[in-house]
Amino acid sequence: MSKGRLEAFSDGVIAIIITIMVLEIKMPHDSTLDALKPMLPVFLSYALSFIYVGIYWNNHHHMFQLVKHVNGKVLWKNLHLLFWLSLVPFATAWMGEYHYSKWPVIVYGFILIMCAIAYVMLFIQLSKIHGNGSAFVSAFGKDYKGKISLVFYIIGIALAFVNSWLGILMYVIVACIWFIPDRRVEKKLIQEDQSAKS
Amino acid sequence: MSKGRLEAFSDGVIAIIITIMVLEIKMPHDSTLDALKPMLPVFLSYALSFIYVGIYWNNHHHMFQLVKHVNGKVLWKNLHLLFWLSLVPFATAWMGEYHYSKWPVIVYGFILIMCAIAYVMLFIQLSKIHGNGSAFVSAFGKDYKGKISLVFYIIGIALAFVNSWLGILMYVIVACIWFIPDRRVEKKLIQEDQSAKS
Amino acid sequence: MSKGRLEAFSDGVIAIIITIMVLEIKMPHDSTLDALKPMLPVFLSYALSFIYVGIYWNNHHHMFQLVKHVNGKVLWKNLHLLFWLSLVPFATAWMGEYHYSKWPVIVYGFILIMCAIAYVMLFIQLSKIHGNGSAFVSAFGKDYKGKISLVFYIIGIALAFVNSWLGILMYVIVACIWFIPDRRVEKKLIQEDQSAKS
Amino acid sequence: MSKGRLEAFSDGVIAIIITIMVLEIKMPHDSTLDALKPMLPVFLSYALSFIYVGIYWNNHHHMFQLVKHVNGKVLWKNLHLLFWLSLVPFATAWMGEYHYSKWPVIVYGFILIMCAIAYVMLFIQLSKIHGNGSAFVSAFGKDYKGKISLVFYIIGIALAFVNSWLGILMYVIVACIWFIPDRRVEKKLIQEDQSAKS
Repeated sequence: MSKGRLEAFSDGVIAIIITIMVLEIKMPHDSTLDALKPMLPVFLSYALSFIYVGIYWNNHHHMFQLVKHVNGKVLWKNLHLLFWLSLVPFATAWMGEYHYSKWPVIVYGFILIMCAIAYVMLFIQLSKIHGNGSAFVSAFGKDYKGKISLVFYIIGIALAFVNSWLGILMYVIVACIWFIPDRRVEKKLIQEDQSAKS
Repeated sequence: MSKGRLEAFSDGVIAIIITIMVLEIKMPHDSTLDALKPMLPVFLSYALSFIYVGIYWNNHHHMFQLVKHVNGKVLWKNLHLLFWLSLVPFATAWMGEYHYSKWPVIVYGFILIMCAIAYVMLFIQLSKIHGNGSAFVSAFGKDYKGKISLVFYIIGIALAFVNSWLGILMYVIVACIWFIPDRRVEKKLIQEDQSAKS
Repeated sequence: MSKGRLEAFSDGVIAIIITIMVLEIKMPHDSTLDALKPMLPVFLSYALSFIYVGIYWNNHHHMFQLVKHVNGKVLWKNLHLLFWLSLVPFATAWMGEYHYSKWPVIVYGFILIMCAIAYVMLFIQLSKIHGNGSAFVSAFGKDYKGKISLVFYIIGIALAFVNSWLGILMYVIVACIWFIPDRRVEKKLIQEDQSAKS
Repeated sequence: MSKGRLEAFSDGVIAIIITIMVLEIKMPHDSTLDALKPMLPVFLSYALSFIYVGIYWNNHHHMFQLVKHVNGKVLWKNLHLLFWLSLVPFATAWMGEYHYSKWPVIVYGFILIMCAIAYVMLFIQLSKIHGNGSAFVSAFGKDYKGKISLVFYIIGIALAFVNSWLGILMYVIVACIWFIPDRRVEKKLIQEDQSAKS
């Protein structure tokens, strides 16, 4: 089974997800600059989610470059990931509209966690197919970023119960971790890992 | 005539169908957890339809892997399938909004039946082109799942007149039949088929 | 310049046009069968436009199979066609909502004419590139269907001033002309053409 | 890293951006010709943005034809461009709805400037990868049109503070510069450049 159509379908769905979020940015009720100002939180939540979905597309793209073959289970694990990603626009709009209040921020974090778990499940399925010695597993095997992200999401959700902005801060930090070019971060993480062991 | 663009176009339409359904999930009217609770039926109908459209993409993907050539009639049979699939978001939203009451559940089942019939019509057209001895026909010829699905849909619609949740149960069972990895189900069905004959 | 990305982009835009029309089918305001009945005209205008956009995708697909090379002008002529096609959902929704009354039907016909003209302009540009003796020109040169369609659209718009349903009838006839498998229609048209000459 | 999926993803996002703008053209509140007239500004702003997004797709297509390889930074610079392009539908709808009044026109110009800057950033990143002597840099190196566009956008925004229609005029001029076939404009600009030097 070829990976071509799976990539094309995923690209299509992710392209739609990243773009339809803009439909949630409702037009201001006037043509003044003042009418635009209250839209700042909506705009910022859009930017954050755009970066998040972009990160997923980036990682998906990277991961599938080393994929040699796929099977029916991979198709479903991939659809599972797309399912949770497709809920990002909903949480984004809710969070922006209600100015980052507690529950929307928590739900946003929950959906981010589910996306991260779905991504790991897809990775595990692909690892099983390719086997332990494969280039695929050796390239992505030590998923430091993924594990750290999960920890930050959980901390973010917990902090959101106290102050929702602290939750947002955690989500922004995770986005930054992925945004910064891979090699430097990985080197740092490996160094920290080594210094922690010694 | 090449199948490449037909696959790409189908992928595009199915990707849009599966994603725009999320636009029907309207934002809660408050930022509390209580405001989110009444959205559960909307969310569940979205999840069910996401799985259904995912199944169709999966099957379409599988079927076209053995397709060697297409013609003008195949293009139209394929568009016919996409037409009925494109009505799934409408029925999904109606069913979720009115908490799985009778008529929305019946209409949802009707659209699922039309999708199934359109899929069979596409399959028959492709079978004609490839001929009886082809790998295409021998791989997909005995469409147990398809036939069972149609029976369950009809039972589901009939039961929905009594209690709409029984109808939903039937649709969920069909989704499960397709969701479970093919080989096991097929083996079971073959065994049942053989024991029924003996 | 390769035609691959032009085809992919056109497929994407046409896939979105054909699918977002379904977003215009608003949910009924109740969960009864009676609430669904007034939606019949909306549903029928959706089906008609789905067939029309499907015809354009089909023809675009056929035409580009014989295209050898494209240039900057072709890109713009193609975008011009996509522009008018992108207005079909607007006219479709207006026509369905106001039950095929005069002006929506006329505007719908106007947009169909502009699509047809844009298609011819794209064809002429491609003919120029490929030259008179090319397979491209000899295959599509005598565009009987296209010319007849234009005549029917104009008659349809004129009749819509008297009775909008007569206009719709003309649009449906054009759709049927394209829907019926090409060869038979072309043979008939050639026969008629020959008997008209003799 | 291959450029194929980056092109496919960009095509998908741009196809969606160019098409969902039509969703902002709300249905007239009646079925008369008079009800259609007040929609003219909405329609014109749609046409202008369609041409602008079309120009970006055209240029993106041209630029990537000479691209040999991409890296992680290119993916992000490309997403950055898509981000600003994705805000065009929002500004288009605002500008059309409030009949080209001051602030919507200024915001529209601001987003056009950000798109232009993002495009230049993507170009610079690609130039770095391919090196100074490459076909890529020699083909696109002297970006007269891009620089002139930026000047016109800034003039347009400044003029919009006086009269918003003067701002629109500047944006239309920029669109025309790109719309007119490349070679002639470039020749003219080179001639002007030479006569200015002498």
